[in-house]
Amino acid sequence: MAKNITPRANDYSRWYNDVIAQAQLAEHAPVKGCMVIRPNGYAIWECIQQTLDRMFKETGHVNAYFPMFIPESFIKKEAQHVEGFSPELAVVTHAGGSKLEEPLVVRPTSETIIWHTYRNWIQSYRDLPLLINQWANVVRWELRTRLFLRTTEFLWQEGHTAHATALEAHEETIRMLNVYATFAEEYMAMPVLMGPKTDSEKFAGAVRTYSIEAMMQDRRALQAGTSHDLGQNFAKAFDVTFQDAEGKREHVWATSWGVSTRLVGALIMCHSDDDGLVLPPRLAPIQCVIVPIWMKDEQKAEMTAVAEAIRVELSGAASVKVDARDQYKPGWKFAEWELRGVPIRIEVGPRDLAAGQVTLVRRDTKVKETVPREAVRERVPKLLEEIQSALFERARSFREANSHRLDDYELFKSQVDEPGGFYWLPWCGSSACEARVKEDTKATIRCLPFDAPEEKGSCIVCGGASERRAVWAKAY
Amino acid sequence: MAKNITPRANDYSRWYNDVIAQAQLAEHAPVKGCMVIRPNGYAIWECIQQTLDRMFKETGHVNAYFPMFIPESFIKKEAQHVEGFSPELAVVTHAGGSKLEEPLVVRPTSETIIWHTYRNWIQSYRDLPLLINQWANVVRWELRTRLFLRTTEFLWQEGHTAHATALEAHEETIRMLNVYATFAEEYMAMPVLMGPKTDSEKFAGAVRTYSIEAMMQDRRALQAGTSHDLGQNFAKAFDVTFQDAEGKREHVWATSWGVSTRLVGALIMCHSDDDGLVLPPRLAPIQCVIVPIWMKDEQKAEMTAVAEAIRVELSGAASVKVDARDQYKPGWKFAEWELRGVPIRIEVGPRDLAAGQVTLVRRDTKVKETVPREAVRERVPKLLEEIQSALFERARSFREANSHRLDDYELFKSQVDEPGGFYWLPWCGSSACEARVKEDTKATIRCLPFDAPEEKGSCIVCGGASERRAVWAKAY
Repeated sequence: MAKNITPRANDYSRWYNDVIAQAQLAEHAPVKGCMVIRPNGYAIWECIQQTLDRMFKETGHVNAYFPMFIPESFIKKEAQHVEGFSPELAVVTHAGGSKLEEPLVVRPTSETIIWHTYRNWIQSYRDLPLLINQWANVVRWELRTRLFLRTTEFLWQEGHTAHATALEAHEETIRMLNVYATFAEEYMAMPVLMGPKTDSEKFAGAVRTYSIEAMMQDRRALQAGTSHDLGQNFAKAFDVTFQDAEGKREHVWATSWGVSTRLVGALIMCHSDDDGLVLPPRLAPIQCVIVPIWMKDEQKAEMTAVAEAIRVELSGAASVKVDARDQYKPGWKFAEWELRGVPIRIEVGPRDLAAGQVTLVRRDTKVKETVPREAVRERVPKLLEEIQSALFERARSFREANSHRLDDYELFKSQVDEPGGFYWLPWCGSSACEARVKEDTKATIRCLPFDAPEEKGSCIVCGGASERRAVWAKAY
Repeated sequence: MAKNITPRANDYSRWYNDVIAQAQLAEHAPVKGCMVIRPNGYAIWECIQQTLDRMFKETGHVNAYFPMFIPESFIKKEAQHVEGFSPELAVVTHAGGSKLEEPLVVRPTSETIIWHTYRNWIQSYRDLPLLINQWANVVRWELRTRLFLRTTEFLWQEGHTAHATALEAHEETIRMLNVYATFAEEYMAMPVLMGPKTDSEKFAGAVRTYSIEAMMQDRRALQAGTSHDLGQNFAKAFDVTFQDAEGKREHVWATSWGVSTRLVGALIMCHSDDDGLVLPPRLAPIQCVIVPIWMKDEQKAEMTAVAEAIRVELSGAASVKVDARDQYKPGWKFAEWELRGVPIRIEVGPRDLAAGQVTLVRRDTKVKETVPREAVRERVPKLLEEIQSALFERARSFREANSHRLDDYELFKSQVDEPGGFYWLPWCGSSACEARVKEDTKATIRCLPFDAPEEKGSCIVCGGASERRAVWAKAY
């Protein structure tokens, strides 16, 4: 257990903050609720961003940039939207030394400014679909904030697409939800449930919101990404119509979808341990650190040369760093790179080398293996993939072990805090029952998973007919 | 000459706006002075960003992210800084439904919030140098704005580094100026002068500002990047000290440096023509467009298959797009891709193909060449490099042809508006003479070029001793 990190078992919330502080990922800014993302944390976000950006482009999207300032009147054009976002807005009232005629809202999300702009871009069915993404900062004035998970300003991407039919918009919504699920599972090694949110949990202005939901190590749920089918709501609010192939004018169909720096928080909470960060290899800025070890000064040059040779050998196969610093002992370096979550450590020491081998140490399990010097180039990429799979499997097993199918409300209430986890409960579909559970337990319906089988039952609250189980949990 | 583009000779300023509108690069946003960067324009910014980001990392820098909101009191801590930026600030006074206790400034640049943060990161000489860059949006409430060149909100990068000695900070300032110059010349194909700005033109809070300066096709200067030696000004304002190897505490030495979406404007103005955008191949999102041509419908499949085969052949060597759209004629497509500045067009038609060849057309010169079908893979990358060099040479020749060495003030005044250009004039170094020229002509000293030879002379204004010529021009 690393010093200065509270063990998870003692206080999960302090553990999370300690990992972020000790691994120098982020810190609180002088403005309440804002954060500074430090280089170690930002490097993880860059890996996330580059991977997602590639996935968005492979699915036909292009990037653009819309202004951060939105006239206050725009926000008010979509009725649900203004109701949902009004309490959270930051407002610029003065600029250039004078009071502005109309206050400007700092974007909490960009549907309004974007649909105002799309009005001029869309005339005919030939202009559709319009598949645009934006990487940007947004601001939501939250009362309770936590580094990465919920901050006043955060970084995110927001896709905003326009389509000629309701069906196409629906397909796009699901396509991007699937992109998020693939990213979460294959890159973050974080298993997710996916499906629609209930009406009471949907995005302000959406017809239907879908989410991916993951389980953290304290068995709470974390919503990791959302994809919204906006129907014609924003097209109507901003009067965006197109002429179809038959010459008929119709309002455009829309989607929006986003993930944010919250994913860095999810990554920390999903895999890390009492020694610090554990990163899945596919999102690790440094995948492999090589530490040359010397007892006598005259060994230093040789060990460092071997470390350097291995680094060169691995280039293209893994991102590698050699830590040949003089002022720190090997043990100190091991702890530092463990803290920072580097998936593989390679130890290059005189004894191993005399035997023609080096030592590889996995960050996730701490398991050591010695491999012949000449096998390193082949072994490291394989070991990275083994670690990637092992992290996913561990998280999946953990989620399964902490998922419960219950049919009795009193039993559920007695369990929801301890042990906690995901509760698959029959539900009649009524908002009243949903609200009742939230009031009684603070648990919410995370989503109605696509892969929940049809299963006739009785709503756990009112006893009414239930067709499928919904997944309840306490959430971040 | 493309329709809807005003020729440069008629009205350079309208030509610039027309190119941006017709090539769908950007447009004015509903908030005064802000812009929407459309996908075609943003793709160019992405090329710029990726290249610079790699260059910054190669010179040892890492990325981080600092909050956009800065407490108003921070801006006031460095005396010159507050004086320089106060008139341009946008201020958030209300958030979350209430008036804020302290107004928050939307960052016009981040020295203040970053140096406030560095205070906790820097204790010892071992923490130095600190080499951090940030990609972000910033806001300066400008009265007169132009798309890309000067907008209220713009995208940029800002490097903020901390050093143990004045010399190291100076070296960093020059290193990054050189990175900018290399980027401008080797990627943008845009020759630049580089050197210090005068005191009256330096950044608010800097000891010395250095810039790169390019000539646009209307012979005006455009400042394309700046690098600031901040001395200990911000370290003193925010009390950032370190303990040196001897145990002595001293204030830290600082630099900052930035380029912005203004570079997209520079790229347009430097190379484009009356048919639209001309992009240097190294920053072209699409380097080569292949247009299959068919007279009869039954030829379509074959021509498209050949186009597709060439695209595959070129993958890894160039970024290529095949335009096989049915609804447009080849001539329409040619004009469209010329408008968008794609460096090479490959025409694949039945007649050429029967002769075992295809036609390559350069965007910059419109020169056509036919090459054997099997030579395309070899020829295209070479032609891209030829275009890259030709654009640089053309811009360099243009700048040389429009650079003037004058020693007579009246003559200078009679020429500065027409023909205009860069004027290398002897200057005594006094701010009074500099101000006089600005008042008389609106021309400013762009920089004191490093490569200006020593040359004793008499100041063009007061006749006092001049050691070197300064470069004056009217500027964007």
